[in-house]
Amino acid sequence: MECNGVPIDDTFAEGFPIWISRVIITAVTEEYARVAAVEATGFATSAIGCPCEAGIEGTLSGDMTPDGRPGVSILICASKKKVKEQVLERIAECVLTAATTSVFDGLPDAEERFDIKMHFFGDKFEEKCVVGGRNCWKIPIMEGDYIGEEEFGMVKGVAGGNFFVMAENQMAALVGARAASDAIARVDGTITSFSGGIVASGSKVGAKNYKFPIPATTNEQYCPTLKEKVPDSKIPDGVSSVYEIVINGLTEERIKAAMKAGIKAAVMVPGVRFISAGNYEGKLGPYQFKLADLF
Amino acid sequence: MECNGVPIDDTFAEGFPIWISRVIITAVTEEYARVAAVEATGFATSAIGCPCEAGIEGTLSGDMTPDGRPGVSILICASKKKVKEQVLERIAECVLTAATTSVFDGLPDAEERFDIKMHFFGDKFEEKCVVGGRNCWKIPIMEGDYIGEEEFGMVKGVAGGNFFVMAENQMAALVGARAASDAIARVDGTITSFSGGIVASGSKVGAKNYKFPIPATTNEQYCPTLKEKVPDSKIPDGVSSVYEIVINGLTEERIKAAMKAGIKAAVMVPGVRFISAGNYEGKLGPYQFKLADLF
Amino acid sequence: MECNGVPIDDTFAEGFPIWISRVIITAVTEEYARVAAVEATGFATSAIGCPCEAGIEGTLSGDMTPDGRPGVSILICASKKKVKEQVLERIAECVLTAATTSVFDGLPDAEERFDIKMHFFGDKFEEKCVVGGRNCWKIPIMEGDYIGEEEFGMVKGVAGGNFFVMAENQMAALVGARAASDAIARVDGTITSFSGGIVASGSKVGAKNYKFPIPATTNEQYCPTLKEKVPDSKIPDGVSSVYEIVINGLTEERIKAAMKAGIKAAVMVPGVRFISAGNYEGKLGPYQFKLADLF
Amino acid sequence: MECNGVPIDDTFAEGFPIWISRVIITAVTEEYARVAAVEATGFATSAIGCPCEAGIEGTLSGDMTPDGRPGVSILICASKKKVKEQVLERIAECVLTAATTSVFDGLPDAEERFDIKMHFFGDKFEEKCVVGGRNCWKIPIMEGDYIGEEEFGMVKGVAGGNFFVMAENQMAALVGARAASDAIARVDGTITSFSGGIVASGSKVGAKNYKFPIPATTNEQYCPTLKEKVPDSKIPDGVSSVYEIVINGLTEERIKAAMKAGIKAAVMVPGVRFISAGNYEGKLGPYQFKLADLF
Repeated sequence: MECNGVPIDDTFAEGFPIWISRVIITAVTEEYARVAAVEATGFATSAIGCPCEAGIEGTLSGDMTPDGRPGVSILICASKKKVKEQVLERIAECVLTAATTSVFDGLPDAEERFDIKMHFFGDKFEEKCVVGGRNCWKIPIMEGDYIGEEEFGMVKGVAGGNFFVMAENQMAALVGARAASDAIARVDGTITSFSGGIVASGSKVGAKNYKFPIPATTNEQYCPTLKEKVPDSKIPDGVSSVYEIVINGLTEERIKAAMKAGIKAAVMVPGVRFISAGNYEGKLGPYQFKLADLF
Repeated sequence: MECNGVPIDDTFAEGFPIWISRVIITAVTEEYARVAAVEATGFATSAIGCPCEAGIEGTLSGDMTPDGRPGVSILICASKKKVKEQVLERIAECVLTAATTSVFDGLPDAEERFDIKMHFFGDKFEEKCVVGGRNCWKIPIMEGDYIGEEEFGMVKGVAGGNFFVMAENQMAALVGARAASDAIARVDGTITSFSGGIVASGSKVGAKNYKFPIPATTNEQYCPTLKEKVPDSKIPDGVSSVYEIVINGLTEERIKAAMKAGIKAAVMVPGVRFISAGNYEGKLGPYQFKLADLF
Repeated sequence: MECNGVPIDDTFAEGFPIWISRVIITAVTEEYARVAAVEATGFATSAIGCPCEAGIEGTLSGDMTPDGRPGVSILICASKKKVKEQVLERIAECVLTAATTSVFDGLPDAEERFDIKMHFFGDKFEEKCVVGGRNCWKIPIMEGDYIGEEEFGMVKGVAGGNFFVMAENQMAALVGARAASDAIARVDGTITSFSGGIVASGSKVGAKNYKFPIPATTNEQYCPTLKEKVPDSKIPDGVSSVYEIVINGLTEERIKAAMKAGIKAAVMVPGVRFISAGNYEGKLGPYQFKLADLF
Repeated sequence: MECNGVPIDDTFAEGFPIWISRVIITAVTEEYARVAAVEATGFATSAIGCPCEAGIEGTLSGDMTPDGRPGVSILICASKKKVKEQVLERIAECVLTAATTSVFDGLPDAEERFDIKMHFFGDKFEEKCVVGGRNCWKIPIMEGDYIGEEEFGMVKGVAGGNFFVMAENQMAALVGARAASDAIARVDGTITSFSGGIVASGSKVGAKNYKFPIPATTNEQYCPTLKEKVPDSKIPDGVSSVYEIVINGLTEERIKAAMKAGIKAAVMVPGVRFISAGNYEGKLGPYQFKLADLF
């Protein structure tokens, strides 16, 4: 199968369940909502070494937020236990402290719910209030009054949606990956948690050559500079660089939409030669996103 | 004392020692170095609830980096024990995985040094190499070869440099704080770790009204909406909003330079009415930065 | 009438006909389309002293462009005669010369059409081709081949949609104006041609006190610092700064949508006190946008 | 000669005299100075079809500007006659109208000076004032009072500094050109006036195949897709894309510094294969910048 003349590998991306909360951050301008969102979703590329996986889902006009101000929606993804802790810490440290922000639950219909007792920060000077039909706390702070919700929903979503952008050289692969991550940024219900939405060093579980425990090591089958050195290299002829795009999303359907948008964007970039995806042969994750089925 | 007609409070900022590593991130363009730096310094506003405090120190031309590529310098600040762990995790998860990046030690003369064994990620496919006189590891990854240092220095620096921008209303305070944080961004050797370099909700240690243990609560003396409700409000007449600028730096001298640059910038903004600073009356931290001495 | 507690003046904005072309600029990534669009729409705030009025209408995903690449849509507004010249010069100088761009007609159904003979740049090395059903020229250039359309439509649209954001001080007015221009940036079919979408120095036609010919001078009725010096000041009590938002659009309906979105955003900003609009009492322009009718 | 293993052509860039004014735009924050600067320097890539050539020279901290506010410095380049007109129009339409800006002469020591009578906009409500030792006008406008200088210097500078980034494919050439233009952005006294500092379609004077007058057409010798079709192609083997970097500067020395910084940055990008430069064999311009002499 081909897309814009670029062969699409006959394989699938393998995904895993992950719990996800969606937090709506509003502010006096979209810029200040984004400033807080960027800080709140930092150090959150991969659950292997970060406390969670997080990213910016999209921007919202005043018509789309509970308080009528512009906003940014973020997704925070982790194990069920850790989601609450991470939502609390990231809002308390990165959003409550940020200029002019408010926070609202972005999954009000989710059955699974939790409470972050952030209003204790008010030291009993805080009061309850209602904004846009949401039960909020008004907490006196230096800038004035912080207002926000404390109860958030979470849903079982999908981690590990992915595809590989393979190109004739590194700069073509890089721009292809960038076009892909830009396109996915427009797909609601999904995030790409890695820096700039691009993964330069896709990994395998554990190690082959080191004997001590190590959670992940380089995926030598997909390393172009090892093509002649490993027996089972999966680097096609004419390819000398690979970037992986990794997607988390609220549903399987959203992951598929993001993968499709990303692949369609990547293959438009000159020098992109092949699209593939990563999986564990179906042994680990319950979700399989076959590339051919996306189109 | 006044600066541009704005009264400067007769008080001081109180600082504390903190251990700091400086990491130089280079990439194919400054933009990609910045993308990695933003992710690596995220979720790092305050050691109260984040794993460390971190921020972008500045940008570097190719003449200023070991590998001749453009770069971004970041500071990672924590207790001595935690610095190593945070440098490792943030580089491994946010920079090694980012497109086209390399990492170098930004404090090569520091006596206190540590090693992050990141080359194990190479699963024995990695090799030693030298770049710009630095001992590096070349690790095969999907994009090609990652190259970077593993040994980093750390120094005992200063946390908690700060001042308050007080204004006649919230938007004047906000733009004043923004002008201040922009100015500090140009001061080498310093960072402002909070979202956008601005703190909306400065805190006090512990709580006055809640009886259970809580690390920090709102600083009601500096809350404008509590001015009439607390007996010891420190909100001057004519002020209705306050932002705090918090600065970490490699030395006392750098903190002073940053405070001076920030205050000079803030007082240029129309509507800014008063500059003060936060301290614990000298009971907690060894460093005192008297505002009057800056000018 | 009020909106979020802010009084809306009982007046109307007065608009004028203007001819508009819409140019779709695509590129390898949205960033490069935007770089070209920013240059192509510069020096184009007001027809009083600029060759045209122009601005960015919005961004387009690959699904929305003829060549499947990400894009930016711009509007170029002038007299009927000047539109063709300006579209030619701005595309030839700012887009054909820009990296990886293509150009397509954004008004394919417009009856009024014109041709810019840009393919002569190819010095007979150029060839015709078809992209996404559009008749294009492929011109060999240094980066490879430039591909784009040469025939564009134009329609009679509306210039001069406007409103005034009035606030208790300058910083509140500024952030209010910024929130407004951000909101309008999301409204299809409209642009705000001034720097950052904000006008600091709204004008009147001609002069009152200078006797030589001068196209426009300061609108002293709306100058806060002249409130006590002119007999007919229109500055309400409690207002000390005013910004004007000026909107051009493809239709009256689009202007109304933009004015509504902008005003709703501005009144959310603390310190904004009054919304008004500018007109010539209906003597000059055929379009009247009554503020009260927007809501 | 080689730089980082990339051959540097044994040729020279040919430059021409051009008159240049430097305008310092200050604002409440660097962001607002930049917004005005971008608009004021737009539609100014090449004097062939634009009213002038202009670009952003750099950013300035409050310590470096007459009014103590952050600023952006721009260069406006044209024939001696046109500089005055362009400085007037671009300041009057794009900066006086922009939020919170002031304007100052950036060449106070230049002997050649001119006056733009912008204060007439004040309709006799304006007053003289002095800021930072500069004679300014204070003009009442809607946002408050605009303050700025009216007299500017101009100097005879240099246009047409240039070099070619040639790479194995288009994306490598693009990123190489981007790294180069980023590096030049740090060199004082210079600008790159084209969109993003990169020229995709370098031209020759006149036409070879069209017989009617036409100022410039594609430079077929440097078009990779014409390599087999023209007898005198200058595209080296292994090169399939070329971008030109064009630099204007205050002095020959500044042009050289910018060319050196740009070339050093470009050759660091993987896939860049050759650096050359454009000239008319010394027949047209008095300045020759030999590439070999830069290093």
